[in-house]
Amino acid sequence: MERYCRDWHGDVTTGAIAVLRPRSTEDVSKAVRVCAELGVAIVPQGGNTGLVLGATPDAPENQVVLSLERMSTIRRIDADDFSAVVEAGTILSEFKDKVEEAGMFFPLALGAQGSCRIGGNVSTNAGGINVLRYGMTRELVLGLEVVLPDGSVFEGLSTLRKDNRGIDLKQLFIGAEGTLGIITAVAVKLMPMPDQVVTALLGLNSLDDVIALYRRARRDCCDLLSAFEFMPPLAFTLAREAMPDLAMPMSGDHPAYALLEISGSGLVDVSDLMERFLEGVMGDGLVVDGVVATSKAQARNLWLFREGMNEGQAKRGPHLRTDVSVPLSRLADFVRDAEKAVYDALPECVCVSYGHVGDGNVHLNVLPPGDLPRSEIDARIYRAKKIINDVLDGHHGSISAEHGIGRLKKSDFDTRLTEVRRKLLTAAKTAIDPDLRMNPGCQLSFARD
Amino acid sequence: MERYCRDWHGDVTTGAIAVLRPRSTEDVSKAVRVCAELGVAIVPQGGNTGLVLGATPDAPENQVVLSLERMSTIRRIDADDFSAVVEAGTILSEFKDKVEEAGMFFPLALGAQGSCRIGGNVSTNAGGINVLRYGMTRELVLGLEVVLPDGSVFEGLSTLRKDNRGIDLKQLFIGAEGTLGIITAVAVKLMPMPDQVVTALLGLNSLDDVIALYRRARRDCCDLLSAFEFMPPLAFTLAREAMPDLAMPMSGDHPAYALLEISGSGLVDVSDLMERFLEGVMGDGLVVDGVVATSKAQARNLWLFREGMNEGQAKRGPHLRTDVSVPLSRLADFVRDAEKAVYDALPECVCVSYGHVGDGNVHLNVLPPGDLPRSEIDARIYRAKKIINDVLDGHHGSISAEHGIGRLKKSDFDTRLTEVRRKLLTAAKTAIDPDLRMNPGCQLSFARD
Ligand SMILES: Cc1cc2nc3c(=O)[nH]c(=O)nc-3n(C[C@H](O)[C@H](O)[C@H](O)COP(=O)(O)OP(=O)(O)OC[C@H]3O[C@@H](n4cnc5c(N)ncnc54)[C@H](O)[C@@H]3O)c2cc1C
Ligand SMILES: Cc1cc2nc3c(=O)[nH]c(=O)nc-3n(C[C@H](O)[C@H](O)[C@H](O)COP(=O)(O)OP(=O)(O)OC[C@H]3O[C@@H](n4cnc5c(N)ncnc54)[C@H](O)[C@@H]3O)c2cc1C
Repeated sequence: MERYCRDWHGDVTTGAIAVLRPRSTEDVSKAVRVCAELGVAIVPQGGNTGLVLGATPDAPENQVVLSLERMSTIRRIDADDFSAVVEAGTILSEFKDKVEEAGMFFPLALGAQGSCRIGGNVSTNAGGINVLRYGMTRELVLGLEVVLPDGSVFEGLSTLRKDNRGIDLKQLFIGAEGTLGIITAVAVKLMPMPDQVVTALLGLNSLDDVIALYRRARRDCCDLLSAFEFMPPLAFTLAREAMPDLAMPMSGDHPAYALLEISGSGLVDVSDLMERFLEGVMGDGLVVDGVVATSKAQARNLWLFREGMNEGQAKRGPHLRTDVSVPLSRLADFVRDAEKAVYDALPECVCVSYGHVGDGNVHLNVLPPGDLPRSEIDARIYRAKKIINDVLDGHHGSISAEHGIGRLKKSDFDTRLTEVRRKLLTAAKTAIDPDLRMNPGCQLSFARD
Repeated sequence: MERYCRDWHGDVTTGAIAVLRPRSTEDVSKAVRVCAELGVAIVPQGGNTGLVLGATPDAPENQVVLSLERMSTIRRIDADDFSAVVEAGTILSEFKDKVEEAGMFFPLALGAQGSCRIGGNVSTNAGGINVLRYGMTRELVLGLEVVLPDGSVFEGLSTLRKDNRGIDLKQLFIGAEGTLGIITAVAVKLMPMPDQVVTALLGLNSLDDVIALYRRARRDCCDLLSAFEFMPPLAFTLAREAMPDLAMPMSGDHPAYALLEISGSGLVDVSDLMERFLEGVMGDGLVVDGVVATSKAQARNLWLFREGMNEGQAKRGPHLRTDVSVPLSRLADFVRDAEKAVYDALPECVCVSYGHVGDGNVHLNVLPPGDLPRSEIDARIYRAKKIINDVLDGHHGSISAEHGIGRLKKSDFDTRLTEVRRKLLTAAKTAIDPDLRMNPGCQLSFARD
């Protein structure tokens, strides 16, 4: 029971009346009907890797967890149709591996891919590192099968690429975090496997230069650019605190770093493209230093800094993690303004800003000194969050770029809702789930909460 | 009045209480409130190029046309942000030109672009020739401003690339054909201008080979492939009936043709890519003959066959135009089965099948002999449509790939709706437009119709 009722970070442990683990769409439908009869609410759960407390109950005495983990059949991988149909409980990396065996590629890629499940990815509209080229999960979904709050089944597993038969209902369920129904299966787009991948880690003089480099890469490398991350110099220190054996990729210290990837298949030559791109941007002085990974192992090593940085932060103790986005043209200003505001108010804390440049997506994390008492740490986390959100509002940003709202961000979401938006959200929710039985407490607040 | 009340093809002329032509979002909001008070329904209209009678009234005594044509300000083109904000009444090609002046590219491209307007494109989720690389209009939209049926304004013009703040409300209005509200402005993605474009027209032995070629092109040319159309040999005859001066692009007659385009910017070399691609596929005998356009004028000439073919069909008299889609893996079978069924029943008619291969989107048109009396022609059109739709149902296809439902396809749509889908559509519609005042008669049927 416990692993279904504790969140990924272990911050919150709750309970549930029961954990239901259906094996089929029909089982899900029956379970939903029984819950409706009993007046019990349902919290759907995939891999339980969500970071906003969406998949765990907040009213244990009145909620069941419905886990999709037993619905993990890959119904079809059709390379000729560039599509696949997969059950919601399939683990993302297992699906990606099977797709690769068929010579194809499913581009969704995130740190949790060994545990998160496709239905959870769709329900959170997950992002990850390849969004700039392939879009969010929404853009990869061709069709959905959903059990609705009354137990009926929305059968929309088509693999059509173009289908303008009226309002596109499936869009409602993508990113709904289980508040409108239970996704039981998903039809997705596949691409040819990019068998050439070149990764580069580059040192630059400022975040402004990183953004200028992104713009240039979009033009120079065209749609073959598949990832473009930024990191602060502290990333390397943090990564090596978690993984002391990591070899420093380059000598010298630069104010900002970009980690980028170009990939392709067939007749394009991405190594040559990367070489000519770097020649140009180093010739112009935009990039000061860099390493290019030509083997998979070398590339893996560069990405380890990105991942190790997260582990390093965890080792320093409880800290604020954010997941915000701003228009690309405001990215550098936002990071500068927000870090300054945090340091002005909390000079004893450390800011770590990194993220997906192409998506304007910043994780601006704040690390209080690890040796403070917990209550002091929590007070700083709370204060830093407020400061960052205020700066964010001034830059017309989003308090949730990729992770969703769940229960964790509900009040920050709620206070920022316009009346019109609230009215529409309420109308959509009550039209589909009039008895508020699907994941109540998640995303939206209602009078009864 | 007449031009607002007659459809593009001139098939139907109707009327309206009035034509409203607001200049601002505030005007639209006021107009909507006044109509609500008077109990009058509203038919929103952009360029009136839609092909399914969505933009013209069906109850002239109780409906006004609300034209967006006076709302045509481009509010912002921001190359640094890869985005633009544009009012709904802006003509597509005018917007594209301004974007190009800023060195950027808006990929939506369709035959009607000189007349259709952005709000209409969003409301029909328009497709066109670049969908395989850039997606439908839906995938190009970052934000919307919408006047709702009660006159309130949904303010969602953000240009954020990633924004997972709960259910994505704007998705409801994309493809809704004006049944949920009036789109007044749109925020869209821009890309760097692809300054290299290479176009090729290729002759092949069969439609199966065309599809095999598409699969190979996706792998060999990767995400630089930007268009891939198929055409029958008759295309050339039809095009030259409309444009007698068109020079035949190649000698010899082939059972099937592919028209494809590779494009890119910066350091990629698309001419070289096309050359090596063609070397491979001609070496393998997949492609029998071909011409490559290396100048803009030559490319224009190749596309003229695609466009001239439509004019040629019109010259032969009234005929059936369809816009269907099937899974890519069924495309060749569908065309074969449907053409056979039509010829079996109506041997005196001529089938012309062409379309967007990558999207599984076929325009299977049927031309009755032009010298028959009109009633005989109409009977054949009616019969051919039924035959094609039956074959389509067997292949799990869509009766509307890109054009929408409107009033023209409403009954074909309605008879194919499952109970669950109808229930959801009705719930969504009545939640947002409870008095059924937005474009009634379009898409959905209600008891009162
Ligand atoms: C190490 C790590 C790295 C991460 N990196 C990223 C990243 O780069 N980008 C990103 O976007 N996210 C990231 N995440 C967040 C998380 O992995 C994603 O949100 C993921 O998509 C959640 O999938 P899940 O199966 O674990 O869903 P869960 O956590 O089980 O559920 C998430 C939400 O979806 C609902 N839900 C789950 N399954 C269904 C279903 N079948 N039907 C209806 N509702 C359902 C739940 O009720 C809940 O509200 C990361 C998380 C971790 C732990
Ligand atoms: C020659 C030709 C070629 C075409 N080629 C293609 C093609 O390749 N691909 C394709 O997808 N389509 C194509 N079309 C169809 C048509 O051009 C598109 O559907 C286009 O998007 C319609 O835009 P419009 O501004 O003319 O809309 P209209 O015809 O004015 O309206 C279309 C629908 O949207 C609604 N609407 C319009 N504006 C608004 C608004 N601001 N708010 C709310 N509702 C609104 C209307 O009520 C109506 O239901 C073609 C049409 C022609 C004549």
